[in-house]
Amino acid sequence: MTLTIDSERLQQRLAAMSRYGATAQGGVDRQALSAAELTARRQLVDWASARGFRCSHDLIGNLFIRRDGTSPDALPIALGSHLDSQPTGGNYDGVFGVIAALECLETLEDSAVPTKHPVMAVSWMNEEGCRFSPPTMGSSVYAGILSLDEAVAVRDDKGVAVESALINLFERFPDVPVLPPPAIGAYIEAHIEQGPVLEAESAVVGVVTGVQGMRQYRIDVRGESAHAGTTLRKFRKDAFVAARKIAQALDDWTAKQGDFPFTVGRFIVSPGAINTVPSDVVFTIDVRAPSREILASFDSVLAGIVNSATHPCAASYEVLYTADPIVFDPDLISKLEGLLRGQNIPWLRLLSGATHDAVRISRLCPAAMLFVPSRNGISHHEAEFTEPDHLAKGAQLLATWALHLSSMTPQTLFFERR
Amino acid sequence: MTLTIDSERLQQRLAAMSRYGATAQGGVDRQALSAAELTARRQLVDWASARGFRCSHDLIGNLFIRRDGTSPDALPIALGSHLDSQPTGGNYDGVFGVIAALECLETLEDSAVPTKHPVMAVSWMNEEGCRFSPPTMGSSVYAGILSLDEAVAVRDDKGVAVESALINLFERFPDVPVLPPPAIGAYIEAHIEQGPVLEAESAVVGVVTGVQGMRQYRIDVRGESAHAGTTLRKFRKDAFVAARKIAQALDDWTAKQGDFPFTVGRFIVSPGAINTVPSDVVFTIDVRAPSREILASFDSVLAGIVNSATHPCAASYEVLYTADPIVFDPDLISKLEGLLRGQNIPWLRLLSGATHDAVRISRLCPAAMLFVPSRNGISHHEAEFTEPDHLAKGAQLLATWALHLSSMTPQTLFFERR
Repeated sequence: MTLTIDSERLQQRLAAMSRYGATAQGGVDRQALSAAELTARRQLVDWASARGFRCSHDLIGNLFIRRDGTSPDALPIALGSHLDSQPTGGNYDGVFGVIAALECLETLEDSAVPTKHPVMAVSWMNEEGCRFSPPTMGSSVYAGILSLDEAVAVRDDKGVAVESALINLFERFPDVPVLPPPAIGAYIEAHIEQGPVLEAESAVVGVVTGVQGMRQYRIDVRGESAHAGTTLRKFRKDAFVAARKIAQALDDWTAKQGDFPFTVGRFIVSPGAINTVPSDVVFTIDVRAPSREILASFDSVLAGIVNSATHPCAASYEVLYTADPIVFDPDLISKLEGLLRGQNIPWLRLLSGATHDAVRISRLCPAAMLFVPSRNGISHHEAEFTEPDHLAKGAQLLATWALHLSSMTPQTLFFERR
Repeated sequence: MTLTIDSERLQQRLAAMSRYGATAQGGVDRQALSAAELTARRQLVDWASARGFRCSHDLIGNLFIRRDGTSPDALPIALGSHLDSQPTGGNYDGVFGVIAALECLETLEDSAVPTKHPVMAVSWMNEEGCRFSPPTMGSSVYAGILSLDEAVAVRDDKGVAVESALINLFERFPDVPVLPPPAIGAYIEAHIEQGPVLEAESAVVGVVTGVQGMRQYRIDVRGESAHAGTTLRKFRKDAFVAARKIAQALDDWTAKQGDFPFTVGRFIVSPGAINTVPSDVVFTIDVRAPSREILASFDSVLAGIVNSATHPCAASYEVLYTADPIVFDPDLISKLEGLLRGQNIPWLRLLSGATHDAVRISRLCPAAMLFVPSRNGISHHEAEFTEPDHLAKGAQLLATWALHLSSMTPQTLFFERR
């Protein structure tokens, strides 16, 4: 059987959400556990309660909205994303996945379709990590990657601790019980791509096969300042020249290896005088790749270049951040792609360059993501936009997948706790 | 005949000068027409007056110290440099040439040697151009390049005008008449190299054949910011990549053309976030070359690259400063080199990368410069240093040249007003 979502309700709900934390530039500032985020949660809980779905919080403030299933032992199929935003966030990043998830539950209810497995809509706490670090805090605690104690002790710039903000949350939601986090059997997240590929390839849906691994470095290059007019090349220790050569060598290597994203985002030249040969450069590298092996090779290549190829300057580096690549469950993806074929929706497989809650959840159970296009690839920006038709198709696919998975006989669903 | 300078007197005089405007770091802050500079002038005038040399100022504050010649119509041979310094200046830049010039006059007097032409020691006003812009102000007014009216109206950061500072100068030196600037027949300036070449080549004297021309540019590169993780290369407009490619192309071109000095001194990347593809880069170029043609070619190459080779980014440029190259009088140089050979002093020919008063004076009469080595090529820095032995050899050569030129029959000296 097929379910048809209510695309008008979807759009209305997204429009309603865009009012919570609305900024003058047309986006939202709805940071984790802020008043604006709590108001958005209240709206979500009201919509859910009106349909009889059961809401609960866990101790880190993840919000679960549950439609019961018919089979007593079946683990819930969870659908979700996050309600919190960047300080200059758009109207789609995270919130689309939460609203689409609730839309799936409501569509099941509208059609009075019973499912063996419960279906849950989830809003993970603090995915963005702006107000409180790190990002994906709620899903990380849920997945056992980050301890609750460590998370609640984190303070924002004003000194407010997560713990206080959670106490405030629970006080504002006396109607939402605080319960142990429910186990789930599978997880699907609908999200905007935040990149330009789907739009460029005229696709409407991206099936996300995994999330790239990432490494960020700081490189320090030390030369010697000198008079720009009187110093011949052979006498120079020009930190700018050395730095640009390092950047070029590594950019070329990653391009040749497989066009992996390579970015020099910060590049600071000292002393910064027009007629002085630079003595120091500090710059950053952000590199992403789908396998640990490639990232390890990059690390070796970088170390080699920094340690020996910068003569007569000297250079050193520091790893600022490392995240391993992950692959979403291939069987689950295969199953979901099977449902996608024959639907006449242009789609393609994608790797995600950005991390998501789904990455954390994939530690516990099979997880998958679907992407919808971002206009001009823009995100983390108030101009973030996705066509209503694309949003509707994405939510419809989510509902199709959710119905299928939640209808499977519990023992045949291929998940197990890792 | 030969004259022998008094190298001990030379060192003592330099040491005395290093006290005027002395800084805690062992250098001097003796900016144009400051109290410290006036005190240094007073010391110089006292030494000169004690030998009966006649001192005068011109209206822009250049100081002339004259030892008369025997031939009534002969134009003076001038030797000089400047007494003013950078805010964190060293103890040799400019002052060496002034003290060496006075040493030549004193040595002639010590040996009671008459010369056909008068010999003058000159301290040009405001060579550095830090307190009042532009640099080489005094010699520029003397040479008719800058008008007196324009120069006296210039104000420093505190609002003090050159005019006021000159009135103060003249009030402090009632014993030094203010006279029309004397015409000169030839000019030689002894100066520290401010670069690393003489030391690296184990030479003691540099005969300066000319001063390089110079151009300084600002380049603006415009791309588009994007997510470092989600944006593949083909979708990027990475301003950093475009900017480093422009810098590399121009650096390679100047290296191939003749190893001309090329410097990227300032390089500003925006927005400067580790995980954001840069949208804008602003950087500067300082390029020097010995001919207008090379600088014009560089300009064409730069325009070509900036206008067409930065796709998909866009770029534009602005010329911030242009100075034509100059060549010192080849006949004069040839004559001076003739006197140098057979003196057993390692020497070589050099182009100066930095400008000097001699460049302005060369507009009026044959001019030449001799360089002595700068340890580690350092200048505009309190660590500036030249070996006493090198200073003595440079001053000795100056005296030899001055004696020779001032002994020539006036009509045979090959100068004419240009």
